[in-house]
Amino acid sequence: MPSPVPDPSPNAASAHGRTAAHATALALAAAPALAELPLPARASLLRRLSRTLEENAAHLAAVAEDETRLGVERLRGEIRRAQVQLEMFADVVEAGAFLDVMIDPADPAAQPGPRPDLRRMLVPLGPVAVFSASNFPFAFSVLGGDTASALAAGCPVVVKAHEGHPRLSDLTHDLAAEVLPAGVLTLVHGRETGRSLVTDPEVRAVGFTGSTSGGRALFDLANSRPDPIPFYGELGSLNPVVVTPAACAGRGADIAHGYVASVALGQGQFCTKPGLLFLPAGHGLEDNLRRAIASVPPAPLLGRWISTAYRATLAALAGHPAVRPLHLTPEPTDARASAPALLTTSAEELRAHPELLQECFGPASLVVTYTSADDLRTALHTLPGSLTATIHGSEREDEPFVRRLTAALSAGRLIWNGWPTGVAVTPAMHHGGPWPATTAPLHTSVGSRAMARWMRPVAYQDMPEELLPAPLRRDNPWSVPQQVGGPS
Amino acid sequence: MPSPVPDPSPNAASAHGRTAAHATALALAAAPALAELPLPARASLLRRLSRTLEENAAHLAAVAEDETRLGVERLRGEIRRAQVQLEMFADVVEAGAFLDVMIDPADPAAQPGPRPDLRRMLVPLGPVAVFSASNFPFAFSVLGGDTASALAAGCPVVVKAHEGHPRLSDLTHDLAAEVLPAGVLTLVHGRETGRSLVTDPEVRAVGFTGSTSGGRALFDLANSRPDPIPFYGELGSLNPVVVTPAACAGRGADIAHGYVASVALGQGQFCTKPGLLFLPAGHGLEDNLRRAIASVPPAPLLGRWISTAYRATLAALAGHPAVRPLHLTPEPTDARASAPALLTTSAEELRAHPELLQECFGPASLVVTYTSADDLRTALHTLPGSLTATIHGSEREDEPFVRRLTAALSAGRLIWNGWPTGVAVTPAMHHGGPWPATTAPLHTSVGSRAMARWMRPVAYQDMPEELLPAPLRRDNPWSVPQQVGGPS
Repeated sequence: MPSPVPDPSPNAASAHGRTAAHATALALAAAPALAELPLPARASLLRRLSRTLEENAAHLAAVAEDETRLGVERLRGEIRRAQVQLEMFADVVEAGAFLDVMIDPADPAAQPGPRPDLRRMLVPLGPVAVFSASNFPFAFSVLGGDTASALAAGCPVVVKAHEGHPRLSDLTHDLAAEVLPAGVLTLVHGRETGRSLVTDPEVRAVGFTGSTSGGRALFDLANSRPDPIPFYGELGSLNPVVVTPAACAGRGADIAHGYVASVALGQGQFCTKPGLLFLPAGHGLEDNLRRAIASVPPAPLLGRWISTAYRATLAALAGHPAVRPLHLTPEPTDARASAPALLTTSAEELRAHPELLQECFGPASLVVTYTSADDLRTALHTLPGSLTATIHGSEREDEPFVRRLTAALSAGRLIWNGWPTGVAVTPAMHHGGPWPATTAPLHTSVGSRAMARWMRPVAYQDMPEELLPAPLRRDNPWSVPQQVGGPS
Repeated sequence: MPSPVPDPSPNAASAHGRTAAHATALALAAAPALAELPLPARASLLRRLSRTLEENAAHLAAVAEDETRLGVERLRGEIRRAQVQLEMFADVVEAGAFLDVMIDPADPAAQPGPRPDLRRMLVPLGPVAVFSASNFPFAFSVLGGDTASALAAGCPVVVKAHEGHPRLSDLTHDLAAEVLPAGVLTLVHGRETGRSLVTDPEVRAVGFTGSTSGGRALFDLANSRPDPIPFYGELGSLNPVVVTPAACAGRGADIAHGYVASVALGQGQFCTKPGLLFLPAGHGLEDNLRRAIASVPPAPLLGRWISTAYRATLAALAGHPAVRPLHLTPEPTDARASAPALLTTSAEELRAHPELLQECFGPASLVVTYTSADDLRTALHTLPGSLTATIHGSEREDEPFVRRLTAALSAGRLIWNGWPTGVAVTPAMHHGGPWPATTAPLHTSVGSRAMARWMRPVAYQDMPEELLPAPLRRDNPWSVPQQVGGPS
């Protein structure tokens, strides 16, 4: 994920006149009514947010393009993606299984002692803070996946706008405010306001998408509270791609081409951008890789702070004694533009130099050659956790070899003969992974299980029917799935 | 939960000659085979552990009684409880739903773009560390709920023995070692070894039951790692009990009697011991409460360190200017014995003196009088999170009043007209709660969902059938529930 941005608008918070404490007070006041909203009404809010995005897509994309330079076509696609997210969560809310209702009726004969009536479900945590991402001004920002999943879970959200697209954030928020009850979604600006959100007593959890350094600082802040709160951060990810000898021999040229396309997609500004390509030594693909990366034109990155960080990280990697350049694009005169690059080293050198294992956010990647299965596996074991890991192999020849590779890869999503960029919005998607890919390896920020981050279980013991929340009642007025008795 | 114990056996680690690093190396070596064990075989290990406890119950209870003085009858009951836990997790493992398998088949027509085949399930995190509790030498110790749920999830466990029952820990471990494959369960002793476990690079998560101060120190250690790991700590809980005016008028004497019985159960050494009793001002139950607590005989606590902490906490509360004693038992001559006590204050004073909101682990409790519904609710809003909250009310008269009370109570389990001590071992049980009740409000240490603490999701994208884990295959060889398509 991108480097932290120097705050370009220190007066942004005062421009809105909204402090963290003011925002969370609004959220707290809105929390009970949102939590008690029947599920169809909650789903309806999400669907209306999707329609608002659709109806204002042209205007939204134009403002976003002006601020992010991601390209109008990509931005229109991303708006559609944000809509699909909102609609998926609406479906999940209506189905009701996300409440994870479990009911164990009283049992006087139970072991080790008589058992009361126990009814358990998930309830919203309360107000949550969401930090927008620079690289997804729609899908991971004001009305992005974190916000959508938190609203779906019944939590009011305070969004910290990203400094890379403040006007788009205001516009998106203002459109949402026409749909949502007061206090359900509040926007704040400014880095210090963001830090205050993390320590605000009313905030019950935080979602964050950004750099490892920035995320770690906020993670530490959340855990240093007198009452620590869950912090769901998506930080940096190397997303290794491993090519087996059989796959390299059989379709190496296609793989080289596809790899560079994935590296360069969106100018490499995806958290799933592959950062490491493991090829067998003597792969013979150097020219293919060089030609492919040389054909990627420099283009503006999300902001000056991104291109500055990109150039510095790339220079450090390219200047490392264990690294050899495959192709370096001359630095463009536009200071905001990228210079696509491929570097190479060996698995042995990678193991010896852990400083090479850092994300370079932008269109650059490191090709790593391995000499044997053991050499490869040993190197893979030294990698930090990633959001994704990809294997290009041949089903027939490589099974035992590949089986051991999958065990060596520490990632949230394992991809076979494909590319990690492009995260499908679908219930079974897992977008997460071991540290530093995320701060919370049990959770996902995409897919239906993303809602679980914003809820906690409560068990009701021998509670009279009329005092139970609707999903736990015997007459089940919301018709949610209730699992009664037995193991689960 | 109890106060931290001064380490009485600085040489315990060397007595076993086992360092944290040695223990986790054993666990790491055992992890792949345990993770790949078919579910019936995994369940069978848990059932064999239960049988081992049963077959050795007399010997185990005798050793435990010698170390803990909890009483042989209670200890035999606790062994049965530990067995029920192991057997419940065995049932859950065999049912397979805990893997949370979700499958979204490929869809070339999906929005916002074509979708690959995605199959997601939960996989074991790897080696985990479990800190035994002093007050549950079986149910929350070497073969207690944390260990049972982690083994059920497929994770090898390194247990840090509690200093209050080291011989029982050794015995339990040695019996388990006859059942389990090498490295699946390893025991270590000593406080420094415990701290080393939390920072050990191979440990992927920690379970802890103990004091707020001890738990906070280890929580901070886990989060200060270069790669922070989940820390599931069950710390301190006040477990408020609220009596409505109608319930007080209708059956006040029974409530006073039942309350003191719950406070005194096991000499107040339960994490669910009620620490606050809210009664309407002018309740007229002072004599009932006095008689009840005066009839509780002093008895040995778990250890000298517990009685020392109990006496100090009680003295501080009893000497507080806002607090008046209802009954103080003279300090027994046995320095390890408790002196049961009831104190009283008003809701207004409680709000003004947050220092009164501390757990007093042992048979003491604070009776708090309220003058109005508003007075009560305002006080409840100042309480920290608890494992439980109890309401004694009348179904007919109190509904609107009680409905607002339940919203004011921040707890993991809400109990109606009952008592919080006695945690049923059943799938729907939630034993957890907001800080400081636990460090992880999304999770439980009892009930079938306790296993979720030790697993993380992995999604497999377009993976060939023969490389998929068994639960994700089309032929579903383990016959686990697979949710295919649609919202979840």
